[in-house]
Amino acid sequence: MNITLEQAEKAIAASKAKATEIDTKMNICVVDAGANLVAFARMDGAWLGSVDISFKKAKTARYFDMPTGEIGKLSQPGEALYNIEHSNGGLISFPGGLPIKNKEGDIIGAIGVSGSTVENDHTVANAGIEAL
Amino acid sequence: MNITLEQAEKAIAASKAKATEIDTKMNICVVDAGANLVAFARMDGAWLGSVDISFKKAKTARYFDMPTGEIGKLSQPGEALYNIEHSNGGLISFPGGLPIKNKEGDIIGAIGVSGSTVENDHTVANAGIEAL
Amino acid sequence: MNITLEQAEKAIAASKAKATEIDTKMNICVVDAGANLVAFARMDGAWLGSVDISFKKAKTARYFDMPTGEIGKLSQPGEALYNIEHSNGGLISFPGGLPIKNKEGDIIGAIGVSGSTVENDHTVANAGIEAL
Amino acid sequence: MNITLEQAEKAIAASKAKATEIDTKMNICVVDAGANLVAFARMDGAWLGSVDISFKKAKTARYFDMPTGEIGKLSQPGEALYNIEHSNGGLISFPGGLPIKNKEGDIIGAIGVSGSTVENDHTVANAGIEAL
Repeated sequence: MNITLEQAEKAIAASKAKATEIDTKMNICVVDAGANLVAFARMDGAWLGSVDISFKKAKTARYFDMPTGEIGKLSQPGEALYNIEHSNGGLISFPGGLPIKNKEGDIIGAIGVSGSTVENDHTVANAGIEAL
Repeated sequence: MNITLEQAEKAIAASKAKATEIDTKMNICVVDAGANLVAFARMDGAWLGSVDISFKKAKTARYFDMPTGEIGKLSQPGEALYNIEHSNGGLISFPGGLPIKNKEGDIIGAIGVSGSTVENDHTVANAGIEAL
Repeated sequence: MNITLEQAEKAIAASKAKATEIDTKMNICVVDAGANLVAFARMDGAWLGSVDISFKKAKTARYFDMPTGEIGKLSQPGEALYNIEHSNGGLISFPGGLPIKNKEGDIIGAIGVSGSTVENDHTVANAGIEAL
Repeated sequence: MNITLEQAEKAIAASKAKATEIDTKMNICVVDAGANLVAFARMDGAWLGSVDISFKKAKTARYFDMPTGEIGKLSQPGEALYNIEHSNGGLISFPGGLPIKNKEGDIIGAIGVSGSTVENDHTVANAGIEAL
């Protein structure tokens, strides 16, 4: 019940195509069901600091089986999960990370995208998932 | 397309002169286009804790190709990049870090300054860039 | 003077083909001239612990501009660089990491491969470089 | 009883001159009596991995108030300080790090050099000290 490298590369290719279509430069990362890295690509000229953010988004999405932006709502000051980002060697809780499910609805991995606005990051991550 | 040591030392000398002029004691750090350290100076009596901050400011400015203070606006509670500082082994998102460009506009490195108010830090970082 | 994503993906594809040919499962990592990650692939069933090793091999090869195995000869007990692996947040000094040069001989990045014997790791890394 | 920035920059200038004289490219680092960074320079084209090594050499020399190579003799398998490199976030115990003393013989800091053979690293570190 793990994403395959072939699937991960297909998702990355679709994300790259979408990133180019909306004129952005992205870091795209796919992890498996164990939150271990499967595949990664940094588009030429994309932010260097987004290498780690794309990985942390994918990791965060799989660690809690939900879009990273959902965690961000709960991690604000005064909210239930305030500063959860301190755990697990660092989480990223703004949009751009999404769990990946198979046809049966089982989570088989996650994708994380970073390099533009969080809206664009989310759009590009979603394009990767829709290709599967 | 990397800053040279000669350029980095010129920037640091100019930053030191500006720091002295406004009666502050600064840590000044220059990284190259790959965000690797090129040159550093801590003025006598400057804060020890600013060694790391000056490096993280320079790194952050290059990682996202913008002044560090811009990131800080977006990383506040409720904003789009809340808690981005947990990525990349620690970022610094208040002013004092600036990308360095060559005449063609390509980013060749970044400078980070820490040791006084963030306004002074920014002023001293800017003095380093203007010397190039 | 940085490797492009297109080049990095070409190298990874060639390394994967060679890994399949010799019946191994590899983690393959490519970094740029600044030792920042460009592309990565973990073949289905490859060791999870080799994700980090492949990255550290690529990083080590670029950090010292030589095959990782050369450093390993010098880092043995009693040799000149004994325990150099404790620097830079961890180095890997056995074979499988190689610098990548352009036609002019400038180093534009590095490749790191991990997942089998060090001889196989080196062979697969080399296949990636020869594809460029 | 701390080395000043002026002294540190004088030492680095002398080390750079010696490095050029013997046709090497060095990373040169000076720390103060508290083992905190004072000044640093990476010569153009010097190994990226030697940034951290030069710092760890300077730090190690001050942490134990002796040349780094002396510690390396004691950290070999079977010797008294076997694997001491695991402490302090990583030590470097091969030559290239030296304590810096004032005229009264008090240790005021340390210098660390990395980028060539350990003999050359030591020679260049020593040139920095002799300039003071």
